[in-house]
Amino acid sequence: MDLNSDLAESFGRWELTDDAALLRIVTSANVACGYHAGDATVIRRACEQAAERGVSVGAQVSYRDLAGFGRRFIDVPPAELTDDVIYQIGALAGFARVAGTELRYVKPHGALYNAIVHHAEQAAAVVAAVRAYDPGLAVLGLPGSEWLDRAERAGLRVFREAFADRAYTPEGTLVPRREPGAVLHDPRVIAERCVRLAQGEPIEAVDGSEIKVQADSICVHGDSPDAVAIAEAVRERLVAEGVVLAPFAGSR
Amino acid sequence: MDLNSDLAESFGRWELTDDAALLRIVTSANVACGYHAGDATVIRRACEQAAERGVSVGAQVSYRDLAGFGRRFIDVPPAELTDDVIYQIGALAGFARVAGTELRYVKPHGALYNAIVHHAEQAAAVVAAVRAYDPGLAVLGLPGSEWLDRAERAGLRVFREAFADRAYTPEGTLVPRREPGAVLHDPRVIAERCVRLAQGEPIEAVDGSEIKVQADSICVHGDSPDAVAIAEAVRERLVAEGVVLAPFAGSR
Amino acid sequence: MDLNSDLAESFGRWELTDDAALLRIVTSANVACGYHAGDATVIRRACEQAAERGVSVGAQVSYRDLAGFGRRFIDVPPAELTDDVIYQIGALAGFARVAGTELRYVKPHGALYNAIVHHAEQAAAVVAAVRAYDPGLAVLGLPGSEWLDRAERAGLRVFREAFADRAYTPEGTLVPRREPGAVLHDPRVIAERCVRLAQGEPIEAVDGSEIKVQADSICVHGDSPDAVAIAEAVRERLVAEGVVLAPFAGSR
Amino acid sequence: MDLNSDLAESFGRWELTDDAALLRIVTSANVACGYHAGDATVIRRACEQAAERGVSVGAQVSYRDLAGFGRRFIDVPPAELTDDVIYQIGALAGFARVAGTELRYVKPHGALYNAIVHHAEQAAAVVAAVRAYDPGLAVLGLPGSEWLDRAERAGLRVFREAFADRAYTPEGTLVPRREPGAVLHDPRVIAERCVRLAQGEPIEAVDGSEIKVQADSICVHGDSPDAVAIAEAVRERLVAEGVVLAPFAGSR
Repeated sequence: MDLNSDLAESFGRWELTDDAALLRIVTSANVACGYHAGDATVIRRACEQAAERGVSVGAQVSYRDLAGFGRRFIDVPPAELTDDVIYQIGALAGFARVAGTELRYVKPHGALYNAIVHHAEQAAAVVAAVRAYDPGLAVLGLPGSEWLDRAERAGLRVFREAFADRAYTPEGTLVPRREPGAVLHDPRVIAERCVRLAQGEPIEAVDGSEIKVQADSICVHGDSPDAVAIAEAVRERLVAEGVVLAPFAGSR
Repeated sequence: MDLNSDLAESFGRWELTDDAALLRIVTSANVACGYHAGDATVIRRACEQAAERGVSVGAQVSYRDLAGFGRRFIDVPPAELTDDVIYQIGALAGFARVAGTELRYVKPHGALYNAIVHHAEQAAAVVAAVRAYDPGLAVLGLPGSEWLDRAERAGLRVFREAFADRAYTPEGTLVPRREPGAVLHDPRVIAERCVRLAQGEPIEAVDGSEIKVQADSICVHGDSPDAVAIAEAVRERLVAEGVVLAPFAGSR
Repeated sequence: MDLNSDLAESFGRWELTDDAALLRIVTSANVACGYHAGDATVIRRACEQAAERGVSVGAQVSYRDLAGFGRRFIDVPPAELTDDVIYQIGALAGFARVAGTELRYVKPHGALYNAIVHHAEQAAAVVAAVRAYDPGLAVLGLPGSEWLDRAERAGLRVFREAFADRAYTPEGTLVPRREPGAVLHDPRVIAERCVRLAQGEPIEAVDGSEIKVQADSICVHGDSPDAVAIAEAVRERLVAEGVVLAPFAGSR
Repeated sequence: MDLNSDLAESFGRWELTDDAALLRIVTSANVACGYHAGDATVIRRACEQAAERGVSVGAQVSYRDLAGFGRRFIDVPPAELTDDVIYQIGALAGFARVAGTELRYVKPHGALYNAIVHHAEQAAAVVAAVRAYDPGLAVLGLPGSEWLDRAERAGLRVFREAFADRAYTPEGTLVPRREPGAVLHDPRVIAERCVRLAQGEPIEAVDGSEIKVQADSICVHGDSPDAVAIAEAVRERLVAEGVVLAPFAGSR
C-alpha cells in the first residue's frame, strides 16, 4: 500500500504544510507546482527531501489560482488547460531532476480534481498533457472518475486512491464535505479504516452498510498539526499490522 | 554566425512578438518562460514552431514580474533567484520536450540581464541554477559580464552576443538607451554592421572610432512590425554575403 | 443616447485599447480595474482623460484573472466575489477622485458579465458589492439579466445596453459568438442600426424579423484599429442624425 | 500614545496575522492592501472589525510582490510607483467606507518602507500618491526618513513611530536585523521600553548608552502567537502606567 499527501503548499511568507514531517510518513508526495501554491524554493526543498527519503515525487497540478488556492472551478478552454498542465509538469520535473530523482506521477489538485471526475473535456485535457509530456508517467485519482477512465484508455498507468478521513456513501463515492459526518476525526477510527483498505477488506459506509473500495494509495492530509498526527497514527498502525508501504509509482 | 531573438512574449489576450515571423529569421529562439511574459500556450507554440524549423530553443529567464515585464531590478535573495530560474528552465524544457526538441541554452531577460553584468551574487545565482539543472546547457550573454565570466569558470559553455541595433561606446560597451543615438534605426546601417560582426571585422563606435566586438550570436528584436522588417533585412544581407547561419548551441 | 466602451485594457508592456481615441468617441468609459486588465498607470491616465473630456467613468469589474483576461467563468463563492468587486470599485473610485471626477457606474466584464445574466448567486453578489460601496452608483448591463433585475429590486439605478456590432435573435438576445453572422462588420450597417436603436425604432434580427431592443447605451468596441474606426463611424452617424449623446449616468 | 500593527496579511488559504486579537490591542491598524498580502475578504473583515472597535484604519502600501511578501526592493519607476500606491489607497479606502469608517493614514510596508528611508525618488513618489489622493491623510514612518521629511514639506500630517521590539543604535537608528541583539524577545523588557517611549524618557541603546526617540506611535508585531502575547503585554503595561492610548490620526 502507498500513502500519499499534498505538500509544498506554502508560498513565500506563508507557511502551510509541514513537508519535513509528512515526508517521514508518506511514500508518495503530491508536490504543488506553483499554480495554486508552492514557490520555487518550497518546491525544490520538498523534492530534495523526498529524494533523500526515497519518497516518490508527483506533480500536483492545478488551475492557475493562487488567490483561490485552486479550489474554484475555472472554465479553462481544454487546449489551454493542457498547456497549463504541461507547464506545471515541466517545472516540477526540473526540480525532481535537480534533486537527483525523477517525476513519477501526476495528481490534480482541488477544484480541478473534482471537476475531472465528471467534466469530460477537462479530463481529456489533463490526460493529453500527461501523454504529451511523458506517456510513462503514472496518474493518481478517484476510482470511477472520467480522469482515470480516459487516462487508462490513453494507455497511461492508472492508480486509484482512497481517503483516510472521508466518509463514503453506500455507492462508494465521497460524502460531500458540507454534509454532516463527511470528515472523520478520530485517529483510531481512521487508522482502522486504513488497515481494512490496505488489506482489501470492506469498510463501513456512512449509513452503516459495508462497501468495497479499491485503492492503490491512501491519501492523508497534512495541512494542520492535527492532520500530521493523524497521518502518523495511520502509518504506525499500518506498519504494526504488517502492511508493506511502498510508492505505487516506484522511486529510486 | 547565429541570430537570436526574444519571443513568446505575448500573454493571454495581449499579443507582442510575431513568433512565426521571427522563427523564419533567427537560428536561436529566446523563449519567454512565464515570469515576465509568455503563457503556456504561447510558449508551447513557439517551441513547436522552433522545432519544426530547426531553430535552437533557449530559456529566456526573468525576475517574477509580469506587471513590469521583467524590466525592473528586484533584489531577490540569491538562493531564491536560483530556484526561480530552475523553475523557469524546467517549465521551458518541458515544452521543448513536448515539441520533440530539447532546451539548448539560457539567456536572462531584461533587468536580470542588466543586473548580472555587474551584480556578482545574482550572476552566481543564475549560474548555479543552470549548473544544477544541466551543466551541459549553454549560456548566452554580454561579453565581459559577471554572468559569462562566472559561467565560464563554472564550466558552462559560454557564448557572447552583440546587438544589431545598439550603438557601442569606444570601450565596447552599449551606449545606454537614454542617451542620444543609442538605438540604430536604418536597416541598411544595421545590416552592414551585422555583416562586419559576422566577418570578425571592427565596427564603428558611437564616437566614430573602430572597435572589435567578439560575438557568437547577434541579437535582433521582434517586438514591432518595424523590428521584424529590420531583422529580415539583417538575415537577407548576411545570407547574401555568404555568412552561414547556424544555432550557436546546436539543434536537432 | 450614450455610447460606452471598454478601455484601460492595456497592462504593463502590453497595449490593447487606444484609450485616447475611444475617449473622443464615447460618453461613458468602462475602465478596467486591474483584475482582468489595466495597470495602475493605464487606469489613472484613462480616468484623467475621461475627466478632461467630460466622459463618465465606470468600473469594469471582473473575476481575478489576468491570464484569461476575465473571459473564463470562475466559480467564486458569492461572498468572496462581493469583496473582490468592492476592491475593484474602491481602486477605481480612487483614480476617478485623483482625476477630479467621480465614479458613476459599474459594468461587469467578460465571463462575469455573461455569468450574471443567469447565475443568481453571483448576480446577487455583484449587486451587494455596489450597494455596500455606494447605493447611488448606477449599473449597466444586459436587458433581462439577473444582474439588472436584482439591481433594480435592490434600489440601484439600472441602465440597459445594446451592442452595436452583434446580431440579435428574434427573442432579442445576442446570437452566440460561435454562430455564423454573430458579429457585424460593415460600418454602415452598424451605424444604421445604432441610429434605429437611438430613435427607439425596431432593428432587424438575424432571421430578418423586426425586434425592439430597449437601450440606454450602445456598446462599441475599441480593441483593434478597425473597431475604433467603426466606433467613430457610429458616433458620426448618430450626430448627423441629430441624436444627442450624453452619459447615461451623468458626469461632471 | 498610539499602538500600531500590521494586519490583514493573510491571503486566500494562507493565514498569517490574528487580526481579531490585534484589534483588541492596537489603536491604529496598518491594513495590507493586496500588493504584498491581503485578499479582499481579509481586508474587508479587518476594516469592519477596526471600525467596530474604534481602531484607526491605515493603508499599508507595498511594492506589487505577493511572492516576496513585499520584502524585496523593486526598482519601480517613480511615476508608476505613485500610481501603484494610489491604487492601493483607493482599494483600502473603499473597504473603510463599506465598514462605516474612513481611511486615516498611509504607512508603507517592508522593502518599500526601508527603501524610502533614503531613496529620494521613491519617497517622493509615495508622497505624491498620498497628496494626489487626499492631502488630509496622515502618514506614519521612521523619524528622519526621506519619506517623512518630504511628506512634511509637502504639507502632509506626519507621525513618527518607534519599534517595541527592536534594538536601537546610539545614533537612534535601528540595529539591522542580521546583527546580534537586533530583536528584543523579553516581554517585560519590551513593555518597560514602551513605557519609557510613551513618557518621553530616554531608552537604552544597544551599547548601553541612553538615547531619546521621538515617537507618536509604537509599532508592535502580530505575525506569531508569541508576537501577539508581547503586544498584549505592552498594552497592559502602558495602561497600568496610566498612558492614554488613542489613535494618532483620529478615528470615528
